[in-house]
Amino acid sequence: MSQSSPCILVIFGASGDLTKRKLVPALFDLYRQKLLPERFAVLGVSRSEYSDDAFRTYMLENVRKYHNGDGLDKALLKRFIAHLYYQAIDTNDAAAYATLKTRLDDLNDERQTRGNYIYYLSTPPSLYDKIPRYLGAHDLQVQGEGQGWKRLIIEKPFGYDLASAGALNRTIQQIFGEEQIYRIDHYLGKETVQNMLVFRFSNGIFEPLWNRNYIHHVEITAAEFIGVENRGRYYDHSGALRDMVQNHLMQVLGMVAMEPPSRISATGVRNETVKVFDALRVYRPEEVSRYVVRGQYTASTVRGEAIPGYREEADIPADSRTETFVAVKAFIDNWRWGGVPFFIRTGKRLPTRVTEVVIHFKKTPHHLFTENDQCDVSCNQLILRIQPDEGILVKFGMKLPGAGFQIRNVNMDFHYSDLTDAYIPSAYERLLLDCILGDATLYARADAVEAGWKFVDPILRAWQERPEIQIFGYPAGTWGPRETQALFDEPGDDWRYPCANLANDGEYCEL
Amino acid sequence: MSQSSPCILVIFGASGDLTKRKLVPALFDLYRQKLLPERFAVLGVSRSEYSDDAFRTYMLENVRKYHNGDGLDKALLKRFIAHLYYQAIDTNDAAAYATLKTRLDDLNDERQTRGNYIYYLSTPPSLYDKIPRYLGAHDLQVQGEGQGWKRLIIEKPFGYDLASAGALNRTIQQIFGEEQIYRIDHYLGKETVQNMLVFRFSNGIFEPLWNRNYIHHVEITAAEFIGVENRGRYYDHSGALRDMVQNHLMQVLGMVAMEPPSRISATGVRNETVKVFDALRVYRPEEVSRYVVRGQYTASTVRGEAIPGYREEADIPADSRTETFVAVKAFIDNWRWGGVPFFIRTGKRLPTRVTEVVIHFKKTPHHLFTENDQCDVSCNQLILRIQPDEGILVKFGMKLPGAGFQIRNVNMDFHYSDLTDAYIPSAYERLLLDCILGDATLYARADAVEAGWKFVDPILRAWQERPEIQIFGYPAGTWGPRETQALFDEPGDDWRYPCANLANDGEYCEL
Repeated sequence: MSQSSPCILVIFGASGDLTKRKLVPALFDLYRQKLLPERFAVLGVSRSEYSDDAFRTYMLENVRKYHNGDGLDKALLKRFIAHLYYQAIDTNDAAAYATLKTRLDDLNDERQTRGNYIYYLSTPPSLYDKIPRYLGAHDLQVQGEGQGWKRLIIEKPFGYDLASAGALNRTIQQIFGEEQIYRIDHYLGKETVQNMLVFRFSNGIFEPLWNRNYIHHVEITAAEFIGVENRGRYYDHSGALRDMVQNHLMQVLGMVAMEPPSRISATGVRNETVKVFDALRVYRPEEVSRYVVRGQYTASTVRGEAIPGYREEADIPADSRTETFVAVKAFIDNWRWGGVPFFIRTGKRLPTRVTEVVIHFKKTPHHLFTENDQCDVSCNQLILRIQPDEGILVKFGMKLPGAGFQIRNVNMDFHYSDLTDAYIPSAYERLLLDCILGDATLYARADAVEAGWKFVDPILRAWQERPEIQIFGYPAGTWGPRETQALFDEPGDDWRYPCANLANDGEYCEL
Repeated sequence: MSQSSPCILVIFGASGDLTKRKLVPALFDLYRQKLLPERFAVLGVSRSEYSDDAFRTYMLENVRKYHNGDGLDKALLKRFIAHLYYQAIDTNDAAAYATLKTRLDDLNDERQTRGNYIYYLSTPPSLYDKIPRYLGAHDLQVQGEGQGWKRLIIEKPFGYDLASAGALNRTIQQIFGEEQIYRIDHYLGKETVQNMLVFRFSNGIFEPLWNRNYIHHVEITAAEFIGVENRGRYYDHSGALRDMVQNHLMQVLGMVAMEPPSRISATGVRNETVKVFDALRVYRPEEVSRYVVRGQYTASTVRGEAIPGYREEADIPADSRTETFVAVKAFIDNWRWGGVPFFIRTGKRLPTRVTEVVIHFKKTPHHLFTENDQCDVSCNQLILRIQPDEGILVKFGMKLPGAGFQIRNVNMDFHYSDLTDAYIPSAYERLLLDCILGDATLYARADAVEAGWKFVDPILRAWQERPEIQIFGYPAGTWGPRETQALFDEPGDDWRYPCANLANDGEYCEL
């Protein structure tokens, strides 16, 4: 591990949900593990008026509630809280940044942090271009000999479409260099997502199979059981494709499909990710309905509970055409993946909460065992479970004991929970630490974000411009519209219908 | 399943251990599962005088003791026992076979078995050539239209060396056609050995890796904790190479290394087995000490118990040079396996009883993760456990949760015992049923037996003719002589040191 250098983390939007639920608890967890620099301060910034003490007391409660480890050392928590400060400013007001600058100068002197600042934008997206500009107006982005380093972390969503993402990149890049910009995607902070690199590239047994010669198709599923909850206004403006596919699932796809980099570094890994996104086949408007299925959940009763339909939820227009489910059949047009479909599926109000990647291997070239063989399609799946019941499952054919050669499908599995001695850090712990260390490997680069939008944008545009592209209803608690089935070419091919428990599956489980 | 036809099973050596412990209990287990033909009889033959009733009473006790399933239906056992008959003859006396013929004729009429006879030679090997000749002298081998079929099952050992095995084949083949001859190797009856075919050939995920491009080396281990027990006289004349390698472990090697047959049939599978044996590199006398290590156990204390050395055991000469341990580094000189060593190891008085195959995969072409990486040699092993704790284990590298990319070796496993609903038949159940059905797939063909001897014979000869080839002592309860280590070329390469529990290993476990 590199040594982290002294610094101040400035959180814009410090009175918001993310700060109290994720950021400050993650910082405490890092502190507890002695992973933070000794000279370290957090400066919370937002419009609300707090004293340092009030902010500390408020955060103390939240650390108690949301921290990740077992137990809590009161004395330690007290020492940690002393690193927190607060400054109220109107972030919309350029002049207010002079106050911020003065406060930072003072804090920098007090904490001896050498002018090293991280600015964390945990604000509404409308401020993503303003704050960097106002910081720039007060030279708060300037780094170099004797001035320390400056880094900028930006939360999702990064842009609303290709044009706005590009514009945002260009605005920010006028002030911060690309190497200073850390676009966060908390999926990349998940242990199980990072483990894909290790699983693929540290094992001689799997990587040789990882291509079009042996893989029939790949599934990426991110299912939620919850509906839009109190985020109706945001969600109806976004939809599943923007909310989940353009960022999180694209990043997962990158991890699954990338070529081996020559080294694990920000440049090495992110170059390979961009190559994957660049190779994604972009659909013409008239192709969209063939390769993409969108859906919207309707009222239903799930496990005895009455669930309202999407259009009955708070803040949702009664004629909304926002998709709460999307399934995409994508192709990566390169040497490794030519002809292998990637089925990406995400939605709200599906039967269970689960995120996983399923590698479906091709069947054997010759079918030797014909008695009651269950492997008509293929026996072999490799499942990388991102959440819950994190782990790895291989499904394969085995001889059923007894006369003849009857085949039965069985499981071989590994669960992270078997590593009883391993502490699993939260995604924000990992990513905040990486930023402090100056390691951008697990942050999205400008070109990757735009390449992702290049794939997603034409789909969004086709939906908007062609009202004849249907949006299918699906009852809450089911696996989306039945029309998703039509994405498969071959009879017998199907999605996996996962359950919370990694080893189980079945269309109706948990319903 | 094919339908089995009426028949009589004639067991020579019916008063011996195998009949009572394995054969008759296995027949009962088949009967219980309704897998035997309705018209079926067993005729026990040996020198001892028994009435049918006495033989039945005797076998009834043994079935109770040694049958395989749970519980025992008394009425069913009684009905089964009524299928047993007995005929005392002196099997060394050619004239006595006239009595046998008469008895068989009568039994055939009574049971309407259409002249279908299986002769099972469960006798000392000295009778293996006599009995077929005497049967032939009374036309008891004749089959064809209206005369039913005749089959001959021969127990191990088949020959003492290449010359005697060849001579035995030629003698028997003068009377029985090769398609009538069933050379039994009970290892081929083991579920886990047969499963190798299914594992390899019904899964698209493993077979692509099964060759010199991805496999670094293969280990086949058959360890026993017991010593020679009351078999000293036999064992000292045989030794580990003849007793275990020439038959059982060669068959396992055949299953691991064969090309995919075009069909699962006696011809398809056995052609491929012979090709493997034929491709084994035969060592010149001067090469033997480089590729083969032999050992003999010495007195020691294991888990508090004093264990005598081999030369102190009953019936063992005090200057015996018989090996109780052998490790062979073998090469299969063909396209698939060129350059891949197969390490075969077996012995008595090793730390535990275990039989398994370990596939060691090559390390990755490029080492991306260098922090605390345990995969210096290779992370990846695939273990096919034949006994005990039957199952499959994959060892692979995974990301240790936390900062950076540290690799940890973890296990993914499948245990047969997880198939709680599956009845696992004994090896003899499987093999006896196959013979009744006329399926010789899991029996050794003449050419395979001789090809096996062609590999083993020069080693035996070198040991005999070159007293300078050392036999190393090893303390009872250890993994054989330390000199076995010298078989490996590369530093860091080593045997797996398995424990009874599939997932565990470690040099000193269970000691």
